[in-house]
Order: sequence, then C-alpha cells, then structure tokens
Amino acid sequence: MTRQLRVGIVGYNFMGKAHSNAWMKVGRFFDLPVQVAMRAACGRTRAKVEAFAANWGWESVETDYRELVRREDIDLVDVCVPNHLHREVTVAALAAGKAVACEKPLAMNLRQAREMAALAARKGLFTTVWYNYRRVPALCLARRLVEEGRIGRVFHVRAQYLQSWIVDPNFPLVWRLQGDVAGSGAHGDLNAHLIDAARFITGEEIAEVTAAMETFVKERPVLEDFGAGLSAKAAGRGRKARVTVDDAVVSLARLSGGGLATFEATRFAQGNLNGNKIEVNGEKGAIRFNFERMNELEYFEASRPAHVRGWTTVMATDPGEHKYFGAWWPPGHIIGYEHTFIHQAADIARAFGSARPKPLQPDFADAARTQAVLEAMSQSARSRKWVKVAAG
Amino acid sequence: MTRQLRVGIVGYNFMGKAHSNAWMKVGRFFDLPVQVAMRAACGRTRAKVEAFAANWGWESVETDYRELVRREDIDLVDVCVPNHLHREVTVAALAAGKAVACEKPLAMNLRQAREMAALAARKGLFTTVWYNYRRVPALCLARRLVEEGRIGRVFHVRAQYLQSWIVDPNFPLVWRLQGDVAGSGAHGDLNAHLIDAARFITGEEIAEVTAAMETFVKERPVLEDFGAGLSAKAAGRGRKARVTVDDAVVSLARLSGGGLATFEATRFAQGNLNGNKIEVNGEKGAIRFNFERMNELEYFEASRPAHVRGWTTVMATDPGEHKYFGAWWPPGHIIGYEHTFIHQAADIARAFGSARPKPLQPDFADAARTQAVLEAMSQSARSRKWVKVAAG
Amino acid sequence: MTRQLRVGIVGYNFMGKAHSNAWMKVGRFFDLPVQVAMRAACGRTRAKVEAFAANWGWESVETDYRELVRREDIDLVDVCVPNHLHREVTVAALAAGKAVACEKPLAMNLRQAREMAALAARKGLFTTVWYNYRRVPALCLARRLVEEGRIGRVFHVRAQYLQSWIVDPNFPLVWRLQGDVAGSGAHGDLNAHLIDAARFITGEEIAEVTAAMETFVKERPVLEDFGAGLSAKAAGRGRKARVTVDDAVVSLARLSGGGLATFEATRFAQGNLNGNKIEVNGEKGAIRFNFERMNELEYFEASRPAHVRGWTTVMATDPGEHKYFGAWWPPGHIIGYEHTFIHQAADIARAFGSARPKPLQPDFADAARTQAVLEAMSQSARSRKWVKVAAG
Amino acid sequence: MTRQLRVGIVGYNFMGKAHSNAWMKVGRFFDLPVQVAMRAACGRTRAKVEAFAANWGWESVETDYRELVRREDIDLVDVCVPNHLHREVTVAALAAGKAVACEKPLAMNLRQAREMAALAARKGLFTTVWYNYRRVPALCLARRLVEEGRIGRVFHVRAQYLQSWIVDPNFPLVWRLQGDVAGSGAHGDLNAHLIDAARFITGEEIAEVTAAMETFVKERPVLEDFGAGLSAKAAGRGRKARVTVDDAVVSLARLSGGGLATFEATRFAQGNLNGNKIEVNGEKGAIRFNFERMNELEYFEASRPAHVRGWTTVMATDPGEHKYFGAWWPPGHIIGYEHTFIHQAADIARAFGSARPKPLQPDFADAARTQAVLEAMSQSARSRKWVKVAAG
Repeated sequence: MTRQLRVGIVGYNFMGKAHSNAWMKVGRFFDLPVQVAMRAACGRTRAKVEAFAANWGWESVETDYRELVRREDIDLVDVCVPNHLHREVTVAALAAGKAVACEKPLAMNLRQAREMAALAARKGLFTTVWYNYRRVPALCLARRLVEEGRIGRVFHVRAQYLQSWIVDPNFPLVWRLQGDVAGSGAHGDLNAHLIDAARFITGEEIAEVTAAMETFVKERPVLEDFGAGLSAKAAGRGRKARVTVDDAVVSLARLSGGGLATFEATRFAQGNLNGNKIEVNGEKGAIRFNFERMNELEYFEASRPAHVRGWTTVMATDPGEHKYFGAWWPPGHIIGYEHTFIHQAADIARAFGSARPKPLQPDFADAARTQAVLEAMSQSARSRKWVKVAAG
Repeated sequence: MTRQLRVGIVGYNFMGKAHSNAWMKVGRFFDLPVQVAMRAACGRTRAKVEAFAANWGWESVETDYRELVRREDIDLVDVCVPNHLHREVTVAALAAGKAVACEKPLAMNLRQAREMAALAARKGLFTTVWYNYRRVPALCLARRLVEEGRIGRVFHVRAQYLQSWIVDPNFPLVWRLQGDVAGSGAHGDLNAHLIDAARFITGEEIAEVTAAMETFVKERPVLEDFGAGLSAKAAGRGRKARVTVDDAVVSLARLSGGGLATFEATRFAQGNLNGNKIEVNGEKGAIRFNFERMNELEYFEASRPAHVRGWTTVMATDPGEHKYFGAWWPPGHIIGYEHTFIHQAADIARAFGSARPKPLQPDFADAARTQAVLEAMSQSARSRKWVKVAAG
Repeated sequence: MTRQLRVGIVGYNFMGKAHSNAWMKVGRFFDLPVQVAMRAACGRTRAKVEAFAANWGWESVETDYRELVRREDIDLVDVCVPNHLHREVTVAALAAGKAVACEKPLAMNLRQAREMAALAARKGLFTTVWYNYRRVPALCLARRLVEEGRIGRVFHVRAQYLQSWIVDPNFPLVWRLQGDVAGSGAHGDLNAHLIDAARFITGEEIAEVTAAMETFVKERPVLEDFGAGLSAKAAGRGRKARVTVDDAVVSLARLSGGGLATFEATRFAQGNLNGNKIEVNGEKGAIRFNFERMNELEYFEASRPAHVRGWTTVMATDPGEHKYFGAWWPPGHIIGYEHTFIHQAADIARAFGSARPKPLQPDFADAARTQAVLEAMSQSARSRKWVKVAAG
Repeated sequence: MTRQLRVGIVGYNFMGKAHSNAWMKVGRFFDLPVQVAMRAACGRTRAKVEAFAANWGWESVETDYRELVRREDIDLVDVCVPNHLHREVTVAALAAGKAVACEKPLAMNLRQAREMAALAARKGLFTTVWYNYRRVPALCLARRLVEEGRIGRVFHVRAQYLQSWIVDPNFPLVWRLQGDVAGSGAHGDLNAHLIDAARFITGEEIAEVTAAMETFVKERPVLEDFGAGLSAKAAGRGRKARVTVDDAVVSLARLSGGGLATFEATRFAQGNLNGNKIEVNGEKGAIRFNFERMNELEYFEASRPAHVRGWTTVMATDPGEHKYFGAWWPPGHIIGYEHTFIHQAADIARAFGSARPKPLQPDFADAARTQAVLEAMSQSARSRKWVKVAAG
C-alpha cells in the first residue's frame, strides 16, 4: 500500500487557499511516491475553518494549533498564518516532532529564524519554506543555465518586485500594513522573494548591503476586520491609524562573487501588478524574468555568432525539458501562479518518498540566510550605513 | 440541500484530463448554485478508465458509453472522445435525455453537426461545445469592448493559430493525423477555434470564404498505439502510411458586416508553440491577442488624445473587473490554459442553477454555424472557388 | 580625381525629400568609389522646385523632365513622380541613355513594367527600383539567414502591411486615392513592398494567387490641391468624389517551393501606423520582422538545445556584422526609416564604381516580376479565381 | 537676408561626426529663423581635420582651438573634445565672448562645472550641454505627461543605462577607460544621462545619494592610438595598464519631492547594447522608456476605466503631436539616434532667432546641477555614506 504524507494546515486565508489547492491537485498531476492526505485544517474561528475544510476536502478541523501539532495522524504541519505567528506555531510543531512547511518570510527577524532553524536541526526534522517562485519552471531554467556555466562570473543582479495595490491613500490598514503582525511591509512580503530568487539563481550569497525604506502614506483608515485582505477597496471612514511598515525598500548589495546587485520592492509602483522581475548579467550570458509573463525566460548567450546573437525568449513549457512541466500540458499551453505551489507540494511529497525525508531547499537554515539579508537591509535603512550580512 | 449537477465523462485522454481537472476544481473556486458531482467515467479499456477515475475522483466507471448515457444518476454527459465518435456518443446521450457538453469541433462535417443540433432542439436539451478559448478572460474582455461600441464597424479580422509540433517528418501518424478519426488536421483542430473566436468577439458571421490546404509531409511512420498522442517523439521505423489530413489551411473571408478576414491554421509554423492569435481592426478601436500571453489583451482606442494614443496592454487579471478572475488570485497573479476549462465548467454549472437549465453559448446550434464555415473552407480548398457559407 | 555619379531627380514631394536626403548624406557616411553630385532637380512649378533645390543642394533646376533627361552632365535619373508618370519619365530617360532609379511600384501595370524593363535591357542601361525595405539591415539579415540554410524549406510566409491613416471618412481624396494617378491603393503602395520582401527574403517566386480587395469608404471630400499629401487632415466640405482605388487587399498564394503565403495590405488597420510585418516559417528556423521596430529581427533556430530554444531578438546594429551598419553608430544606437534610402543610394553609388555599372537588385526586370504578382492579384480580385502569376 | 548661426567645432571623433551630421541636416528639415553656417572645424592633426572638414562641409580648418575661439566669423563653439579638455576649450571660448555648446558631461568635476557656469553667467553668454536624450520625442512626451499632471506625486524613479562593450577583458584601454582623460567611466558617460533624464522628466532635484562603484576588469591591453575608440576589438598584446575608471556604478537616491530613485550605469550588462532605460511611477500614472526602442513611450494612466487600464505603448511619431517629429516622416516611419542631435541643433538655432539668444536647457548652470549629483555619488562610493547633493 502506498505510504501517505499526512498534512495539517494552520491558517485559511490567501495562502490557505493557495496551499489547499496545491495539496488537492498535486497527486492528480504528479507521479508521487506518497499519497497526500489532507488530514486537518486549523483556524481560530470554527465556522470559518469548517467551511474552509469542507470546500477543500480537509478531513477534520481544529481551532487550536496546539491540538493540531499534537495529532499522531499528521506528518507535516503547513503554516499559513500571518508572519507574527510563524515562530510560535512552527516551534510547537517542531517540538511535537512534526515536519514543517512554513510560509515566507520565515520569521519576524533573524533571531527568530535562527531559533527555528536550530530547533529543526536539533530535532533532525524536515523543514521547507514556501518561497514558491523557486518553483516557476522559467526560474528553474535560470538556475540551470547558471549551473551549466552559461552565465559565468556574475557582474550584476537587478531585482525588482513592483506592485501598486496600496497607492490609494484610502486603502485600509490591513494586517500586511501593521508592523506587529506583518513584521515589515514590501520588505518581508516582496523583497524576501527577490533575495531568495537572487540566491537561488546565482548560487551566491549577499555579502553586504545598504538600503533605504519609505512609507509614502503614513496613516490609513482602520478596518475592523483585517481579514478582508487584498481585495478590500472600500474607502475607510472615520478613524485612521499609523502605518507601521515600509511601503517600499531599495537596496544596493555586493555579492559573494564580487558582483553588484540592486533590489527594489514596492507597493507603490503604479502600472505594475505583480511585477516580480530579475535580470542577471554574467560574463558569458544573461537572463531576464518577469513574473507577469512567468512562462517565459529571456536568455542572452554571448558566444553565439554575432549576427544571430540577442535575447532569446524561451517558453519554459516543454514537457520533456522544463522542470515540472511534464505534469501539465503540451508546449505553449501555459500555467499560472497557483502552479508554483503545486510544484512545491510535489517536491515536498517526493522528499517523503524515502523512510527519512530528504532535505528540500529552501529549508529553515537556508531561509534564515535570506532572513539575515532582510535584517541587514533593515538595519542599514536605520543606520544609513553599509551593513555586512551575518554569516549563515 | 444544494442541488447537484451530476456529470458523466466519456474519454480519458488529453481532454479527459483537462475536463476532469475542471470538474474537480470548479466548485472550490466558484460560488455555484449546484454542486458538481463527478459521477462516472467511461472508456473502452477497463484498467485505464479505472486508473483515470481513481486519479480524478470519478465515483464509478463504465466501459460502454451506452451504459453511461442510460444512467439515471447522470444529468450531463461530457464527450471527450476523438472527433469521429462525437456524433455517435452525443446522439445516444441526447436520445437518453441527457444534457451534453461536447468537445470541439462539434462534428466531422456540417451534416452531422446539424443533425446533432436538431436533435438537441427537438428534445429541448441543454448543449454546449468546449470552445474553451471563449473563457479566456482577455477574450471575454475583447467581446465586451465590441459590445461597448469601442471597436465600431469591423474592417479586418486577422486570425492565426500557429503550432509546430509535427514539422519533424518522423513524428508518427497519431490519430490527429488520420482523416477517418480526426476528420481534418489543423483545420478542425485549430482553425475551428479561430472561426469560433472571430464570431464570438465580433458578433458577426462569416459570409463567404476561399481557402487552400496543404499537407507538407505526405507520409509518416505508423504508430501501433495511436493513443500515445502529442508527446510521442520516438522516430518511427519501418512502415509508413499516408497522412490523410491537412497540415495547414489558409483562408480569406468576407464578414457579414462587410469586413475582410484572414484565417491561418497550421502545425508547421516553426517558432510557434500554441500561437492562437487574433487581431480585429475597427473604426473606433482595435484589439490584439496571443494565447501564449493569454492573460493580456492589447487594446487600441482611437479616440484617446493623440499624444497618448497607442496599444494598451491590459492584464485581464483584476478580480473585480475581468470575467472569471474574481474566483482566483490578486491582480497580476496569472492563470493558465487549464483555467479556461474550469471557467466553462462554472458557466455550465451556473446554467443548471435554475430548474430548467439556461442556454449557454456556444450551444450545438451555434457550433453548427462554425462547422458550416469549416465546411465552406474545405469545399473551397477543393473547388478553388469562393464559397458562400450555408445559413445557420 | 574621384569619378562622379551625377544625379538628376524628377519630383519633389514625399519621396523627393527622402531621396534628396539620401543623396546628400550617402557620401558623408559611406566610403564610396564615386562622388555623388546632386546635379539637377526637376518639377513643374518653378518656384517650388527652386525652393526644393536650394534646400537640398541640387545644383540646378529644370521644369520639364525632357530637358533634364537630355542633359549631358547627368548620369542617373531618379524618378520620384506619382505612379502614373513612372513610365513616361523613365522611358524618356532610358531613351536618352540615362541610368534610372525609379520609385516603386515600377509601373501602373505589368505591360508597362515589361516595356520599361525591355527597353532598359535593349539599351544595356543600369536600372533599380526603390524597394527601400530591402535595405533595412534586419531584413538583409533575414535574407542572409535563408542563404545560410538556417531556415530550410519554407512552409509559410505571412506578410502584412498595416496602416490606418484614412480610416476617417473625411480624409480627403489625395492622389494616392485616385486610380488614374496611383494605379491602385494599398495594393501598389503597400502590398508591393510585401511581395518584394517575400521574394527578396525567401529567394522564391510567387506561383499563383487568389485575392480580394475592398474600398471601405467609397467617396471622399475633394481636395483642390492634391499635393497636400499624407498630412492633410482638414475635413473636406462640399463636393465629394469617388475613391477609385482599393483601401485593402488580402491574398493567399502558393510559393514556387510549395509553401503557402498570405498577404494583407490595408490603410484601415486601426492601431497600426506603418506596420510592415513579415514572418517566414521554415523547416529549420523562422524569422519575424515589424518595421515599427526595424532595427530588430526575431529569429527562431530549431536546432538549438530544447531548453534554450525560442525566438531571439537580434538588434541588427552591430557595425561589424550587420549590413550597412558599419557606416553608422555603435551597437544599439538605432537608425530609422530614412536610412533605408541612404543605403540604397550607397548601393547605387557602389554599382557605379566600375566603368560599366554593375547590376543592382531589384532592377527593372526583377521589379517586373513583383508587378506580375500585383497584376495576378488584381485579376483574381476581379475574377474571384486563382490566377497563375505570369512568368518573368 | 536670413541671419546666420556661424558654428565652429572642436573635435572630430565620434561626437564630431554626430554633431556635424546634425549641423548639416538641421536646416534642411527644420524651419529655422537662422541659417546654420558650418564655419570651421578644429583638431590637432591637420590631415585629419582637413579630411573631416571636407567630408562634412566645414568651410575651413584650425589646428589650435585658441585660434578658432578668437575668430570673428564664429558665433558658437561646439565642444566635442574628450572630457578632460571641456573646461579648457570652453573657458577660452567664453572668454572670447562666444556661445558654447559643450558635450556631456559638462566637466571633470563639480568645481570645474561651476567655474564654467559662473563664467558664462558673468559674460551673459548662451550655453548648452548636449544631453541629447532630452531631444528624444518619446522623452519629451514623458516630460509633457508630467507637466500635464498625468503622473502626479512621484514615488519612484528607476533608471538604468546598460551597455556591454567592454566585458571582454582584452578590450583595450581606450581613452574612455582612463581616468585622467575621461574623468570617470560608466558614471560620467552613462549615469550622467540618467541623472539628467530623471531631472528633466520629473522636474525634481536629487536630494541625497548613496552609491557603489566597481571596476570588474582591473587591467587592460594598452592601445598606442587611443583614438581608435569604441570599435577597437583587436586583442592587445604585451603591455597592460591599470583601468582607472569605474566599469559600473549603482546608486540609491532620494528626490526633492520625497520619492525614491535607483540609478545603475554599467558597461558590463551582457545582453544590453545601449539600454538607456527609465521608469517613473507616480500617484496618477507611470511612464517607461528604453532607448533601444526610442520611438516608443509606455504610459500607464491610473484613472482609465479598470477594464481597459494598462500600459499604453505610444509611438511618438505623430508629426502633428510629438515634438520634433513634424520635421520628419509620416507616423510610424521611425527615426534614430542621430536625430536627437539634429533636434538639439534645431533648438539651438531657434534660440538664436532673436537678437539676444534665448536660454536653452540644459545650460551650464543646469548641467552643473547634474554634475553635483555625479560628484555626490562619487564621494559616496568612496565614503560609503549617504551624501547630500550640493545645492545648485
């Protein structure tokens, strides 16, 4: 009989939906060594979590994560709660001997991240962080091109995550705009992805940084129910409260290999919806990516004959060639945002194919290195000085 | 208790997978008036259909479609078999009083299509054809712009469906390349989509046509198992057999409103994977679409101030604005090919919200008009003359 | 002392400006075997031709082309008059033993074109036709890729010349819209370029065609002064007269090598300004071009490794690689429309480097073959039948 | 009789060619209040300057700029010498009471720039600096959109000037790579354009900066003749010498209006030829530009109806709408790099239409502000601290 990977999820909002869809679909499209069992969903409000579980097929519900992590019929805890609760839920799960898949950013700060990574290491438990853009086939191709030596010595990384959903000053103070819940704004939400992607693609570390942050709209209407989330557009009336996170962050960095990098993450880039972009220029080649066209990778190969040299737009949709695409459709029949989560779910399930789960990157130790970069940038934004990134 | 829409599917290959995924997901993302029940899957090979059903959650299996259409616990028969069996399965289903959702093209020829449409009309049954590109949000936007009067009198339609998967002369003779199974080649497979899209977007009919067809590779290696489908790449050895469908079709047409149209469908357009493209130029505006970037629609508005006039690339991903996107993700978090099927499944389920299912376009009568255009083009390719399209 | 190429120009409107600029600049940027001498300009209205000559540095003026062609101090007559006068001026020039560079299309019809070509052949005189798009570096690259065998057997040519400057029904009846002056509308003006480009790039001939033409706006305001040309935008009042040329032409064609081609030329493609586009799909590769981005050629190389295969956008601006660019600027510093004329002027001057000028394509004989295609399409548009193109 | 603008040029290399072409063409295409007279060209090597003058039509030659600036038949001195000579030649010209058009960057450092601006102010003389990208019609449109209030409060400027011509470590040590001649590398050559463009488009000043510079290739082959310039590709042998300028510079900045800006200029961005790019995100709209497609500006208008909102690609080629284009061709018939110089020459000539020449931006005072930003960035790259930009 096929072994099972029994999952319990904590949290049921935006990421809860994306992860549930992933757990539901992954076994239907991917040939996996284990069968994913959607054992339990956990949330504080019983009615909500029950509706959520019914919709997605979670077999049971819990309203206290401490109950969930204790259950013997669960192998892996999937943590989708807001950022300020990552540590608490994760530590409880690890303490209970559970594998953990935690939403990004791993923690509110580097200290927490290291604590979590250390605990996982001590307990020898499987961990992974949902830096889902690592599972975009086009970005897997980018990494492959680096590994094949097609990029060579990296001179430049240019990474931008451009959104625009809070330009309107009447957009309400949702949890993502509150420092005590989210930890930071564009920095932890978007810049974290850029840092992870830069590290993933180049295989280099970020050595030192200087950064600036800005909160363009200082106060916003208070929302009674912060769960309304991203789609809330109704203009707030009456009370306003202080926005306690950054709206935008810009940073310069030096890479471990000597290259220069720029990072920019913002929710105020009018014209951009989910413009997660990265360009890497090396001695032998270059790559360019924009999530809004996530099925495409642009690649420049310097050694081609001069008269046919240029940027090649590769549709990363060849089932026989591009990572993960074999599970999907014929070439050119594109996939979307949600597939990145399914791919990570597939990788997790595969890791559990052996008696002792194989490590899967980014694990907590790896994500703590991204956290160290985030922290160095935050510190630099305050000190207005270059800051060396703390060693792994 | 919520009413159910009980579905039985016939066929389990490429389209069987796409449709099953749609039926499985639709209720989780869309707020529907009925609950979709995946009642039964049918295929000739028991082992295969059982594996298929198990994977996708079809509750039971049949190996004879005549059994399936007779079942009282089924409301709608979803027909995913190869083209030459559409009529047979569909007629049986309609005769049994079942609603039918049939893959495109509706039939092998116009006579069949009309017979099927007439039977459905006579029985007063719900029908629909899976011209799934009508469910791309960006193409829904195209139609909306026409309806809003933003395009005006249509001068030109320029439609191309460009693929390249059989350029290799050693690609085997799969069922799609056999006239007796597929009916036609690029014509029924790809051109049908273009004709449907042109009709859908402009709201006009195609009045007369002239066309040419070509089979560039006349013979191909025989495959013992034709089910291997699109991904078969192994060079055939030994026996070759005649290719009995078109590799490419080109056509000129006059629209009912007086405009000129060009259609081109081919599997020999090196460089293009699934390049389903259409441009419409009207008196007041123009639209441009390419499926490989299916989340985008380009729109030209002639009345804008001259200094800011140009093609606007609209990301059709605003949950509050663009059709179907409210079920998905925040703006800019793109969707893919498979979502078009989910959208059609949602529309079908909504049609069943009332006691008597509401008509849903394209129904069989509408698809028969597309079939009439296909037939006129085929006839023209033989006669080398302009051919008037038979009236609805 | 350097030999001279002594040029006399007939006509001073749009093309007169483009050609004068070319003659003026060519020697400054290109290393030529002869010195271009701008000897004389000719036009019917003395004041206008004098102003024109003064502006561009033509050394003298004539008001009767018969005087100009007779002058012994002129080697080459550059014919920039409206289409209906090409034959008359050209024949006079050839009769007087002059080399001729004639604007496109060569003539009003095939009979004229052949007469002109025959006369040139009989007299052994140098001729060329200003199909200037042959001198776009990116299109020279396209031809080179074909010659290098990088495209292979041609399956498809897809050529479109899309403009929109007369969509407004109040745009006046300029000479380009009058059949007796222009010969045809979009057909001779735009489609001629497509046909020439298709022949130039592929090296194939067009074997047979079927076509349709349409005049969307049947009557237009009369302009007293037809010379006002393209920029005339004032709405006409009072009298209207019949438009006697086509607004748009669409055509299917079979190539000499067995491929299928589509041609579309129109002045009613809202959204397009000077969208001269061509795509060629061959067995081994494909190319794509759009004049509005004339410094770029897209190239698809089928034999690249599958994971880096895609359309490569080549900036055809490498001075050491791309034809003509050595005369200009560093890579990426783009050139424009006017440079195509300068390039042709350079080729003409180079042809005159030897005692007996070397032939330069497209000469009259070659342009007569393009004219034969135009004529076959016109005939097909009337007869509604496929028409074989008359042999060279 | 028409008044003249009598020009004398100093320098005959890359910029000498671009400027000569501009002076030669400007009067033929633009309707100017003065006639441009190309009076004299000056260079140290008589044979070279004579050939240069003969080619471009400069009426006389000088081999000592002190002679040229003294001549009474010259109104304006056009300074095209390498950067380290800008001050010397310009000061001599101003001292002699001549108007000056100086290549960019204005000077080797801020002290020099201020001295030059002060002298011009004291003498009340006309000055301008050839920041030619201000004369790209699409960038004029960008500024116009800002002036029309279509962008609103500026949140972000993102400027990159990406080239790649010295990635090869055997590319020789041309003058642009020598600090004592060029002053700096990518910084003064490319970043200067970005800073000028950001100031020009937004109308804001850059308040403070932090920056990093890098020289990726520390030593390069010595070229005996440094004049060989950009196209020199022969690998050097034997001696190498130290590269004394930056290969790349990255910078963060705060704008006077509170926005955040990033600047990046590099000659090591493999894949980019002349990628001068800028994006501005404001409260009401956004603009995006890439010089390699210099005829296009992308504009995002936030207030459009949501279903047609997106980036509009405006072809800035409408003769009736877009600055400078009225002199050229019909819409869509694009122009190139060299036209930016012709446009600036036209603006200079127009400034001389009145008895007392009107000021033309950027004049020396304005260019000194750009120099102040360059200097602040250089200082920050050394000090690794944020540096306030010196007031104008």
